[in-house]
Amino acid sequence: MPTSRLEAFADGVFAIAATLLIIEIHLPGEGEVGEELLDLWPSYFAYALSFLTIGIMWVNHHVVLAYTREADRIFLFINIFLLMAIAFVPFPTALVADHITEDGAREALLAYGLTYTVIAVFFQAFWQYAYRRLLVPDADPREVAGINRSYLPGIPLYAGATLVSLVSPTAALFLFAAIALVYVSASIWVRDEALR
Amino acid sequence: MPTSRLEAFADGVFAIAATLLIIEIHLPGEGEVGEELLDLWPSYFAYALSFLTIGIMWVNHHVVLAYTREADRIFLFINIFLLMAIAFVPFPTALVADHITEDGAREALLAYGLTYTVIAVFFQAFWQYAYRRLLVPDADPREVAGINRSYLPGIPLYAGATLVSLVSPTAALFLFAAIALVYVSASIWVRDEALR
Amino acid sequence: MPTSRLEAFADGVFAIAATLLIIEIHLPGEGEVGEELLDLWPSYFAYALSFLTIGIMWVNHHVVLAYTREADRIFLFINIFLLMAIAFVPFPTALVADHITEDGAREALLAYGLTYTVIAVFFQAFWQYAYRRLLVPDADPREVAGINRSYLPGIPLYAGATLVSLVSPTAALFLFAAIALVYVSASIWVRDEALR
Amino acid sequence: MPTSRLEAFADGVFAIAATLLIIEIHLPGEGEVGEELLDLWPSYFAYALSFLTIGIMWVNHHVVLAYTREADRIFLFINIFLLMAIAFVPFPTALVADHITEDGAREALLAYGLTYTVIAVFFQAFWQYAYRRLLVPDADPREVAGINRSYLPGIPLYAGATLVSLVSPTAALFLFAAIALVYVSASIWVRDEALR
Repeated sequence: MPTSRLEAFADGVFAIAATLLIIEIHLPGEGEVGEELLDLWPSYFAYALSFLTIGIMWVNHHVVLAYTREADRIFLFINIFLLMAIAFVPFPTALVADHITEDGAREALLAYGLTYTVIAVFFQAFWQYAYRRLLVPDADPREVAGINRSYLPGIPLYAGATLVSLVSPTAALFLFAAIALVYVSASIWVRDEALR
Repeated sequence: MPTSRLEAFADGVFAIAATLLIIEIHLPGEGEVGEELLDLWPSYFAYALSFLTIGIMWVNHHVVLAYTREADRIFLFINIFLLMAIAFVPFPTALVADHITEDGAREALLAYGLTYTVIAVFFQAFWQYAYRRLLVPDADPREVAGINRSYLPGIPLYAGATLVSLVSPTAALFLFAAIALVYVSASIWVRDEALR
Repeated sequence: MPTSRLEAFADGVFAIAATLLIIEIHLPGEGEVGEELLDLWPSYFAYALSFLTIGIMWVNHHVVLAYTREADRIFLFINIFLLMAIAFVPFPTALVADHITEDGAREALLAYGLTYTVIAVFFQAFWQYAYRRLLVPDADPREVAGINRSYLPGIPLYAGATLVSLVSPTAALFLFAAIALVYVSASIWVRDEALR
Repeated sequence: MPTSRLEAFADGVFAIAATLLIIEIHLPGEGEVGEELLDLWPSYFAYALSFLTIGIMWVNHHVVLAYTREADRIFLFINIFLLMAIAFVPFPTALVADHITEDGAREALLAYGLTYTVIAVFFQAFWQYAYRRLLVPDADPREVAGINRSYLPGIPLYAGATLVSLVSPTAALFLFAAIALVYVSASIWVRDEALR
């Protein structure tokens, strides 16, 4: 089976999960509009962070498929579990937006971090399966090894930031943002042969 | 008419129905965040089960189209009715999540099971129509017969689990999960010629 | 400009508008679950009717594009206005579901009918523009004339059913259902050269 | 990396952001249905305006990609930030619909205008990057210069209308509508070589 329809389904889930993030943002409607708009800053921050992180996962998903010659059923189901975790993101995002400045910040960040850790685990499974079983025949071994190395820090980084949320939810939130920004910067500065 | 645009519309509905499942999950917002997050386990379970089942239907939908040479209008409308049933899934999923540990568990599971039974009926119609009228000319008869056999248990399995919900809603819920997991396992262990 | 990306955008809007219909259906949560589920029958009916009608519009949209050789900007904007009207459908659908058995049935059906009448007007503009300006060079004139004739009743039928809602909302609702079912039956029984 | 998958993700976000606009429209459910339907006119107006503006952005996005020979990572991330801003539109749209005739109209229009100004900034970055780094080799310099000129007024126009909202929210709203309508008219009357 070619990977094209897997791509169509995955692109759909990525696009919808990212776009649905906005419907969790609402004015409480009890005070003055201007003040309420400013008080919603945790919602805007959580929206931007989750949208960017889903965008990064989408880029990485594309890199994996660029090295995949075809899809078998195991690969299809790993993909479904990965998408199941990505489509879950709007829930902990709303949780973080609602609780970062209130009671329950620790639990909210823990749920947020666990979601991303699960995504990292499924993404690693997705890549490892493609890498070991479905690699395109003409892949440059040096390039593939480079990609493999670049995905190794994912699980420990997200698991680490999740543990930090037990001590300081705010620090954990900024850590998640730092992971995303470092990733964007790094992927821009290194030569991106993977996408060619 | 080629099947490509039918695929695009179907992939869209599958991806959206699966991704919309998450917007039904909300904290009640009355107690402690940590406890409420744990109390939502039926929602997580129902989310994962419905996402996986929609994913399985998506894989099967793809298998059918891989054996379909073109689409005529009857096939288009069977497809629309199938998608209508799949897009309905978020409603009984939320119902099960809200009622499995409370009053109305039986009715919720009944609605859930009926929805999947209707999906199974439309899916059978979708496959039978493709099989009898639109089969690609070079399809291997042995393979096609194998696929045909593999789809036969769908309706009785879902109808049976639906009947079980009248006796024990919890047993029915785990039966729906078992059907999904057995399907995933089976489709991995058998050789997947259908997808080649 | 080729019509392929117009198709992708349109398929997305059709699929999302149809799938979003479900999120308007909720249990009131005040009585017994079984009874409430049965009392929601107008919601199920409105869901099925709107999903089917959007599905029919999607099929027709495809037929038009099958005869269109390319898209210019006027065609792109007619398409955007058509999609704007289709994406509006979930609102009057929820209105009909909530009010058909209560106060406001007439106004609900009027809003529902006006939405479909506007869709019919934009669809006619979409087809007429393709027909007069963008027709594929090798289109069979007899076939094209047949399609043209088949689209003529759209506006008067929907406008007529909308007027009926002023007298009897229930009759209007069943008229909308009849239009959809007659269309499905007719398009199955006539030879569907348009899709070849 | 070819631009095709970037297109699929972008088309998904554009289509979903536009279609999600409808779920923010609800009857308050406190008065008479007919009156409430008429009182919702700001919602219909805001829906149509945002849908059209997103549609225009989608057309422009397509024009840029028609001149882009491939995507690198910087381009991917500019695209993600652009889509992040577009997916945000349903929130200020609901804000405008709820507050244009009430308290908070100024703040609502300010939020609406800022969103479109941010979109205009990211869109300019998206185009400038494509124009300077990723231009297709055989692009007609005169055409490209024409497109470049046509995108220059975007930021000042939206920033200007946003400033107007500080003085008169209603005037700002009609200014946003005028920008959209002028754009549609202009893009129809000029020869659209960009889309060929």
